[in-house]
Order: sequence, then C-alpha cells, then structure tokens
Amino acid sequence: MIPLDDRAAVEALAGLRGSHGAAVAGAYARAVWSILVEPGDGIAGALVETHGAVEALMRISESDDPEIRAARARWMPRLQPTAIAAALDAARRCGATLVVPGDVDWPSRLDDLGVHAPIALWRRGTGAPSDGPAVALVGARASTAYGEAVAADLAAELGAAGVTVVSGAAYGIDGACHRAALSVGGSTVAFLAGGVDRPYPRGHENLLSHIAATGAVWSETPCGAAPTKWRFLSRNRLIAAMADAVVVVEAGWRSGSLNTAAHAATLGRALGAVPGPVTSAASAGCHRVLREFDGVCVTSSNDVLEMLGAGDSPPPAGEQAHTDTSTRLLDALSPRTARSTADIARRSGLAPDEAAILLGFAELEGRVTRDDEGDWRTVSRSASGGRRAG
Amino acid sequence: MIPLDDRAAVEALAGLRGSHGAAVAGAYARAVWSILVEPGDGIAGALVETHGAVEALMRISESDDPEIRAARARWMPRLQPTAIAAALDAARRCGATLVVPGDVDWPSRLDDLGVHAPIALWRRGTGAPSDGPAVALVGARASTAYGEAVAADLAAELGAAGVTVVSGAAYGIDGACHRAALSVGGSTVAFLAGGVDRPYPRGHENLLSHIAATGAVWSETPCGAAPTKWRFLSRNRLIAAMADAVVVVEAGWRSGSLNTAAHAATLGRALGAVPGPVTSAASAGCHRVLREFDGVCVTSSNDVLEMLGAGDSPPPAGEQAHTDTSTRLLDALSPRTARSTADIARRSGLAPDEAAILLGFAELEGRVTRDDEGDWRTVSRSASGGRRAG
Repeated sequence: MIPLDDRAAVEALAGLRGSHGAAVAGAYARAVWSILVEPGDGIAGALVETHGAVEALMRISESDDPEIRAARARWMPRLQPTAIAAALDAARRCGATLVVPGDVDWPSRLDDLGVHAPIALWRRGTGAPSDGPAVALVGARASTAYGEAVAADLAAELGAAGVTVVSGAAYGIDGACHRAALSVGGSTVAFLAGGVDRPYPRGHENLLSHIAATGAVWSETPCGAAPTKWRFLSRNRLIAAMADAVVVVEAGWRSGSLNTAAHAATLGRALGAVPGPVTSAASAGCHRVLREFDGVCVTSSNDVLEMLGAGDSPPPAGEQAHTDTSTRLLDALSPRTARSTADIARRSGLAPDEAAILLGFAELEGRVTRDDEGDWRTVSRSASGGRRAG
Repeated sequence: MIPLDDRAAVEALAGLRGSHGAAVAGAYARAVWSILVEPGDGIAGALVETHGAVEALMRISESDDPEIRAARARWMPRLQPTAIAAALDAARRCGATLVVPGDVDWPSRLDDLGVHAPIALWRRGTGAPSDGPAVALVGARASTAYGEAVAADLAAELGAAGVTVVSGAAYGIDGACHRAALSVGGSTVAFLAGGVDRPYPRGHENLLSHIAATGAVWSETPCGAAPTKWRFLSRNRLIAAMADAVVVVEAGWRSGSLNTAAHAATLGRALGAVPGPVTSAASAGCHRVLREFDGVCVTSSNDVLEMLGAGDSPPPAGEQAHTDTSTRLLDALSPRTARSTADIARRSGLAPDEAAILLGFAELEGRVTRDDEGDWRTVSRSASGGRRAG
C-alpha cells in the first residue's frame, strides 16, 4: 500500500540525492511523508521520531492506536502512487533537492520545533544553513515607503554584518529585505508556503531565482503543492525557528507576520518590532508586538545586533537623570556678566567653599574664566550653561 | 539670624494664607525654606521631616552635625531678610498662594518623593489636586507636527475622560497637551521650574493664565526665582510624582523628558512612550523609553487608560497564532469549482469523516454551499477562503 517498492521513484530520488541504499530509503520515506501530511502534523512527527521514517510509514496501516487511525483517515486520501512520482519529477525538473534530518545541510535550528518540525525540506539552491547569526525580518505585503526603507536599511546593514536574513519572499517588507541583503552580497534565505517549483508570488520569480542562486529557497511542502492559507501560517513557524531573532518591520493589526511573532515567542526566540507613526495603520501590528508580546523596540541594525548578543550597548538612559552640582554651578554663571564666588554660591544654592572648588575644576576644563577682579563668567562656546532645558 | 521675627513678612503671609498664629508660623518657615534651598535638597527635607519646619530652621545655626554644617554653608548665602519679604510680596502681587503639607490642597502624591518632596509649593490658581486619575504627558520643545497632533489627541481624549493632564508648560509637546486638555474643558495643571510669577516660556503667558484660571500652575521655587537648568531637572520629578502614569509623547535622544521618565521609573509610576518613525530624530527619546526603561508602547488614549487601570483590554494577540482545521478546510474549497468531500479531504489533508463534519458546520454558518451533486464550493462573499495570507 505504501509505495516503498516504487523502484522508479526511488531511483529518481537517488538521482536527486546522489546516494543509494538505506540512506535513500529513509529519505524516500520522508519525501512520502512530506506529501501525505500537512505541515506541522504532530502525529506524523511523533511517529517518525519514535520509529524512523520508514518504519513509521509501515505502522500507519498496522496501528490500532485511535489517534493514528484518525490520522490515517486524514493521510490516506493523499496516498496516490502517481502523486509521489510527480512530486519527485517536479523537483528534478526545477533542480530542487530533498534535505532531511541528518544531512549536513539540515537546518538544525528547526529541531527546536520538536514533533512539529518538518519531516523533510525541499530546497532550491545549494546554500547550506549557516551556524552564524540569523535574523528573520518579516512584515506585511501592504507596506509603506517608510516600512520598505527601514526594511532595506536593516537588511542591508545586517547582511553586510554577516547576519543571514530569513524571510518569506512575499511582496512588501519580505521582498525589500531579501533584495537589500542580496544587494550587499549578504546571505539570505526564503521559506515558501507552497512547492519550491512554484515561485510565489509570481512577481517575485526573479527574486526567488536570485535567492536560490546565492543561498536557498526552502519549503516543507513538496513540489507542486499550492500555497494555501494554512501552509502560510505553518510556514511562519519555520521562519521563526530558522532565526535567532525575529523582527517585525512593518505590519498592520492583523498581518500574518504577527503569527510569525507568536511562533517566535513560543520558541523563545528574541522578538522585536520596528515602531512607526501611531497614525499609520501599517505599523499597528508592530505596536502590538511591542505591547502584547513585550517585543524589543528596534530602531536600527545595531538594536538587532544587540538582540543577537553582538551589538554595542547604548549609553545608559539613567545618564539623563544625572543632575549634578556642576549643572547647578554653571546655571549660576553667565557668559556676559562676571559674578563673584559668593554671588555664584548664593545663586546656585551651593556652599561658598564648594562653589570655589567646583569653579576651579570648571576653569581647568575651560568651561569658565576668571577676570582680574576674581569674578567668573562662562566661556561662551560652552552650551552647558544654557538655561532652556525643560 | 533666621527672620522668624519678621513681623511684616509674617503678616504678609497671613494675608496670603487667610489664617494666623502657629499655622502661619509653620507655613512661613516653609516659605523661608523654599527660598533657602534648591529644589529636592534632601538634607533640608530630612531636617524638616524630623523637627518640623520651624524647629528645623532653628537647628541650622545650632547643629554640629557635619552634614548640616555643610548644608548650612550652602544655605546661608541665600539668607537675606529682604529676599523673603520680596518673594512674599511678589507672590501677593501675582495672586499666588503658598500650599504646604497638611493643607487640604497639598498634592499628597508628592509625598512619595520622601525627603526630596518639596517643602512648600507656590500656586497660581485655585485648582485643588484631584484624587482622580492623573497622567503626565511630556515631550520635547522641538516637536514635529506628528508629535503635536498625537499629543493633542491624547490630551483631549484623556481630558474628556476625566483624567488630569499634568505637564511642564514648555513649547512643543507640553503646550499642545495643556491646550488640548483645556479645549475639552478637561483638568490640567502645570509645574514650572521658576517662580509662578514668571511665566516661562514668555510666549506661554496666556496659556499659563488659562491653566491658572481653570486649574493650577505650581512651582516649588519662590516667586522671583529664575528657571535654571537644575530647577528644570528637579521640577521634572514633581511632574512624575504628581501623575499615576507618565507618557513621553515625542522626545529626541537627549530630551529633558527622559529625565521625567527616569523619575517616573524611580517612583514606580507607570511609564509609557508614543512611538514614531525610527527615521525621526524627534522620536528617538521615546524609543529609548521603550527600550531602556521598558516603557509601555502607547498608541492611543485607550492605551493610557489601560495604564491607569481603566481601559478596555485589546483582544489577545495570540488569536493571530490560531491556525485551525477550518482554515485548512476552507483552503481546499473554491468559490468557482465545486468539489467532492473526498477531494476536499485530500486537498486539505483532513480525514474524509472530519472534512464532512466540518463542511456541515461551515454550511450552517453560510460559508459554503452544496450543489445537487453533493459537491461543495465556498460562498463567494466570504473572504476566508483566500489564499494570500503570507
């Protein structure tokens, strides 16, 4: 019933994989699984995890477990011998390869998804997943010039800094991120909801070819599969899992990228969002990430590098709260009118001794000068004595 | 030495306060303190807290405590008998009143400042601090049209909702907030860095008169005092303490409103900021509040009401992550082509039984229809079956 004896198909796969024997049988079984089940099917994932892909396929028809019997009812309508050969043939025609756990190119970050990890991945391009830092930059298709500009700046700077940019190849923010990463020779990978032989959206056919040429376009659905809404939502978990941090660049209130953000939160990936005008509906989803997911406010690529544990820390904001006596002293001086130490002490509310000492330091720093009568004034190039600081 | 025997001054104060005797002596001592010390002087605050204002004044000259002796050196240059009479006279001329702890109009929220609470406050206007919710809306003088528009919306909506709007009467965001609150008949109060008889900035003289006419303009510095940089920074702690929540509406990287935010954090007040474009330097301070102070992302007056414990909670963002089987089912249907239950089961990866049950529910909900052959299609007004959801 399970077409593991489909020699033609197995040979076709051996051609794709450049190997033979038991390794091919395992990979073939995973290819079959990727055709039978919808992305993220936990029953299939658990079965494969427990028994291995080949043995698990055998168990489908044998098991009396009610959960597996229910799953079997779900999977069987897909079990058409021609479908498997067709998917492999489509993969061969578009130059796609099958990547399975254990392969050197298997993206091990995806294993964090547990039983919901993909059973197999289809890849266009030969880019192997990097061990280096990776960030998912995602956002809405309905983007604004502001969002696209920020997306491009972030992706280009992160790409140039050696960070792999992961995204979903959609119009709008996704596309801007891939393009900007490519423009600086950075590493970028795309995850599709449908088969990698079906460039989606159509208008990004060239972009996807460029991504495949320099990196990889991935999908867990087999070649020929249509990008359905369910598969988009499931695909988002792969984007989140594939990255060390997820940043929503621009997204409306109900954007699908909030689904990616939710997956990032579940997986414990660092999560951030780029704020925008509160008057822009296109940023409302980003503000939800900040409010409801406690996301990090991302304003620059350095903020993202910091999320990845590689950025420069900004000077602490507490510095702003630092209100020292030298401020009080300089408040009491004028660049125009020379004042005595006693007068300055009274005006600043400092003791005359303390004022005299601080004036001495300020003189050494070139911030104040003393005239022949011993009276003080601020050096006018200094802005520190300014009074308007509300 | 301490001019508690200045009968003319005491009488002048009695006139201001409408009372006599010991109460006046205590208030008078606090007025003297407010002239001797710079805002937030913790030594003075502790001395007054321990001994009362009158007794504390006596102790200045007697004490051998090295800390108090150092403070005395700081305070003595201010002790000019004419200064006290002049401040009281200036207060009388501008119609200011002295408000001290224990007065019914004393803003008790300020007591959270401990020994750094003001020893006395000068007030223009008769508005008493409300027990109701209060929010500090602050921001930079260098504001943009965006920031001012958001400030005005927030202040008008909060003012109309019965929330007192506290701010600093500066140009830019502060002014926009006061004006908008006044425009809806809302309650608004201003805290100044200099004396309440010295409208600052000058261009807000009319605005300050309006605030005083409907509420109150407060300062802890006596009439005649200039608004120095130190006093601006110290004043900011009063704005933070006077509110239940502090929201930075628009502020640059080094705006003084970050100092108010720091005070809010220290005091445990709810703290938020309105995001803006990351390309706008005028919002950089707000983004610091979100990043470095873990401030709440404020996008609407409802978000502020929520900080005050009075808003409607938004629907949980987790809803976005909800990817149910009915999505998978509807993905497999088309509004144009009728499909059999078996075909839909195969396309959706659902068991035929489950697909049949879900199709029945969807039919009841009017999302799908069945033709005479028993085949299904989606009802075209429904957008749920759409495929573009990346």
